[in-house]
Amino acid sequence: MISAYDRLVAFARELQLVSDSASLLGWDQEVLLPRQGVAYRAEQMSWFSGYLHERFTAGEVGEWISEAEAAGEGEGALDPVVAANLREWRHDYDHATCLPTKLVQDFAEARVHAQSAWAGARKDSNFALFAPHLEKLVDLSREHAERWGYEESLYDALIDRFERGATTRGLSGTLGTLREALLPVVEAATSRRSFDRGRLAGHYPVSKQEAFNREVAEAIGFDFEAGRIDTAVHPFCSGIAPYDTRLTTRYDEGDFLSSLFGVLHEAGHGLYEQGLRKDWRGQPVGNAVSLGVHESQSRLWENHVGRSRPFWEKWLPRAVHYFPHLSGLTPEDLYDAVNQAELSHIRVEADEVTYDLHVLLRFELEQAIFAGDLAIGDIPGEWNRRFESYFGLPVRNDAEGCLQDIHWSMGIFGYFPTYSLGNLNAAHLAAAAKRKDASIEEGFLRADYAPLLGWMRREIHEKGSLLLPGELIELAAGSPASPEALIAHLRERYLGE
Amino acid sequence: MISAYDRLVAFARELQLVSDSASLLGWDQEVLLPRQGVAYRAEQMSWFSGYLHERFTAGEVGEWISEAEAAGEGEGALDPVVAANLREWRHDYDHATCLPTKLVQDFAEARVHAQSAWAGARKDSNFALFAPHLEKLVDLSREHAERWGYEESLYDALIDRFERGATTRGLSGTLGTLREALLPVVEAATSRRSFDRGRLAGHYPVSKQEAFNREVAEAIGFDFEAGRIDTAVHPFCSGIAPYDTRLTTRYDEGDFLSSLFGVLHEAGHGLYEQGLRKDWRGQPVGNAVSLGVHESQSRLWENHVGRSRPFWEKWLPRAVHYFPHLSGLTPEDLYDAVNQAELSHIRVEADEVTYDLHVLLRFELEQAIFAGDLAIGDIPGEWNRRFESYFGLPVRNDAEGCLQDIHWSMGIFGYFPTYSLGNLNAAHLAAAAKRKDASIEEGFLRADYAPLLGWMRREIHEKGSLLLPGELIELAAGSPASPEALIAHLRERYLGE
Repeated sequence: MISAYDRLVAFARELQLVSDSASLLGWDQEVLLPRQGVAYRAEQMSWFSGYLHERFTAGEVGEWISEAEAAGEGEGALDPVVAANLREWRHDYDHATCLPTKLVQDFAEARVHAQSAWAGARKDSNFALFAPHLEKLVDLSREHAERWGYEESLYDALIDRFERGATTRGLSGTLGTLREALLPVVEAATSRRSFDRGRLAGHYPVSKQEAFNREVAEAIGFDFEAGRIDTAVHPFCSGIAPYDTRLTTRYDEGDFLSSLFGVLHEAGHGLYEQGLRKDWRGQPVGNAVSLGVHESQSRLWENHVGRSRPFWEKWLPRAVHYFPHLSGLTPEDLYDAVNQAELSHIRVEADEVTYDLHVLLRFELEQAIFAGDLAIGDIPGEWNRRFESYFGLPVRNDAEGCLQDIHWSMGIFGYFPTYSLGNLNAAHLAAAAKRKDASIEEGFLRADYAPLLGWMRREIHEKGSLLLPGELIELAAGSPASPEALIAHLRERYLGE
Repeated sequence: MISAYDRLVAFARELQLVSDSASLLGWDQEVLLPRQGVAYRAEQMSWFSGYLHERFTAGEVGEWISEAEAAGEGEGALDPVVAANLREWRHDYDHATCLPTKLVQDFAEARVHAQSAWAGARKDSNFALFAPHLEKLVDLSREHAERWGYEESLYDALIDRFERGATTRGLSGTLGTLREALLPVVEAATSRRSFDRGRLAGHYPVSKQEAFNREVAEAIGFDFEAGRIDTAVHPFCSGIAPYDTRLTTRYDEGDFLSSLFGVLHEAGHGLYEQGLRKDWRGQPVGNAVSLGVHESQSRLWENHVGRSRPFWEKWLPRAVHYFPHLSGLTPEDLYDAVNQAELSHIRVEADEVTYDLHVLLRFELEQAIFAGDLAIGDIPGEWNRRFESYFGLPVRNDAEGCLQDIHWSMGIFGYFPTYSLGNLNAAHLAAAAKRKDASIEEGFLRADYAPLLGWMRREIHEKGSLLLPGELIELAAGSPASPEALIAHLRERYLGE
């Protein structure tokens, strides 16, 4: 007889095949799809989400889960893989079925309109064009959160979609501490002498950048037999499967660092995807655990590796090979070039030091919106007031202010804090890894990151979703994530401490 | 109340969305997929074919078709679109449901093993390794044909899968006539002085070839807003949707003609796909009508356009722009270079004159196999005997003989004749188009193919599957397809008549 649990495993594997197919269609849409194919592709994507939702929310799935849970309860200590799968299936099933179809459809429709309104509003820098759509998405998200439920604050329910186990209270504490510690570093870092970027001026042909990036990605462990790098307007990493992990970056023929850091960041995500256990593919336990942990991997390779001195000692000679006009520069020059800090308006262009200030602003505003303390119409004023107070810069228009990010137009609230969690986790894990295994620190000094990757594979990648994100970090690092390591890292890098 | 016909239209549209998604996965597999992703992709493809088969063969679909047919019978003259859709749904449904699941599964499994055995056998040039697999596929195909039914010969049922309405008797007559008329042309053409290919020697960078090919493809009407050209080992055209038609070609940096003619051939397929009516997408009537008509479009652009004098009068200067070392050549040189005829062993490398002899050999052997006149073990001997008699060349091994094509290892029998139908239809349609519209001939002389494409759009592309292939050709050309025009075309080109 096939047990309910075995049925679930087979069923989840089948849905994974289908959802990975949809991921490929989504990847293709960003990278290759001819313009005229967009509307048809949207129909396809909508079919996939409808199909997956329908299959997953079928009554029999709920019965299998209950049955498997009951069987598990009779057994005493459950196998940790079984326990993790049941935990995730229950969570996802309850989440998927708590929403009436009408709400799901309204949400999908509102998002389509909101995204197009947002694009127009940002172009015209006119928040009023976007406001009614944002209002609608906030209302729907509030209803969503109410139905899903929460312990303390409604915003908790939104965060939970992206970072299991995180709460408003917990994040406020952590990110508040980060902010206090960050402010003096920001002040010192942004007033340092800056590197003259003119010294990097020159022509960097795309084909040479591609070859250089590939060499770097391969050296840090990205497996091109199980992945690719392509070009897209916005760099991203699509984990279509652990056997097929696709990064994208974008090329500026006047600046090789832009595509390189796109690759380093996305390769960090890609190494995580490639490191997931293939034999668990299709089961929840085989998935990456959370956005905050995913972002820790991208930030690790981008900031801790790519912006380090030894990295440039190793890689500047190869860069000179591809771009001979760089031959007059020293590794220290490159180190300075990639570690400039500056207070500026746009989050996605922010450096390692000021980035979290951008996130904190959004985190505060989202809390205020969902607590009912900030009306939609008052967002631009409040954004601009806080921005000027934190960054010392006036916001000249909404396009460089509250309209700059796409997230809200997609109905995504509670996502921003995971960016800062990523920064914080990256530093916390890197420090722990170095402390626990001396060969990692030695590797860093020679720009040999095999020991580091090996540690991440064992402690993070291969564990998939066995634990909740906070538990996973704590077990790997020996202590719960805190801002301490990130602050120490930034103070060392920018204040020379 | 929703009629059974309307239900079918909506249902077919939904299945088309899904099957187009599978097409994209198939395209990606040939063009981009990292090596390690292949096995997982095979699982995905198998899911799609299972899902599509299951949905399409569900009892309710059969009921809708019967109901819609009955409603149609009550109505007198049926709308031609409705009639064509019902005709195709009935055909496909009966075809899909005439096979027991066991046979379908056995076939799928046998194909997988046969393909891998064929690859090994071809590598070792050892037919015996492939023979038992071929035997199995022939047996299963015979059972398939028996269940599907036929009027005169079992081989008819196999042909029907690729060219609706074609029969062994009809094709034997047509292709037999073609053969008789072809032999003197082959003899004359292959004994003409040949162009010295050494005059084309030089380096042709891929990026330049890409730019040149793109310019040509755009000029003949291929729409890059609704399509792409990529690189693959074997050139093909994937019509993922009329809004998303993807060609591939392959590059040889020593020979720009190879990638160019790949593009011209595949762009011919692509123009057909892009010319299908978008408002019919998902209904059978919106599909390309047959392989023999599809191949007529690819051959038209490859041979009638790309191997003509005016084409090279227009395009040699652009070729010189990209490849300056060609500047000493004349359009007549290029015309000679692309019109060399030679008796040789490999079908896919054959020229316009000798190509159909390769097809005829396979057509004869397939008939003999399914008539029970040729045992599997005797295939190599029979192949070699006939090949030497038709081509005057001994076959030195099975790799350059009966193991050269992939088709049989995929269980595809009855497909080869559609290649010759394509050649024949191309000439027949081109001659009719020129006769019926003087601007087409004039356009040919200036290498302006807009009038030609306009005619094909109206007479072939936009008609989708409204008629059966033979009817469509006859209506467009004013007479049924016959070898006459192809022979006249070849006699003119090679014998200067």
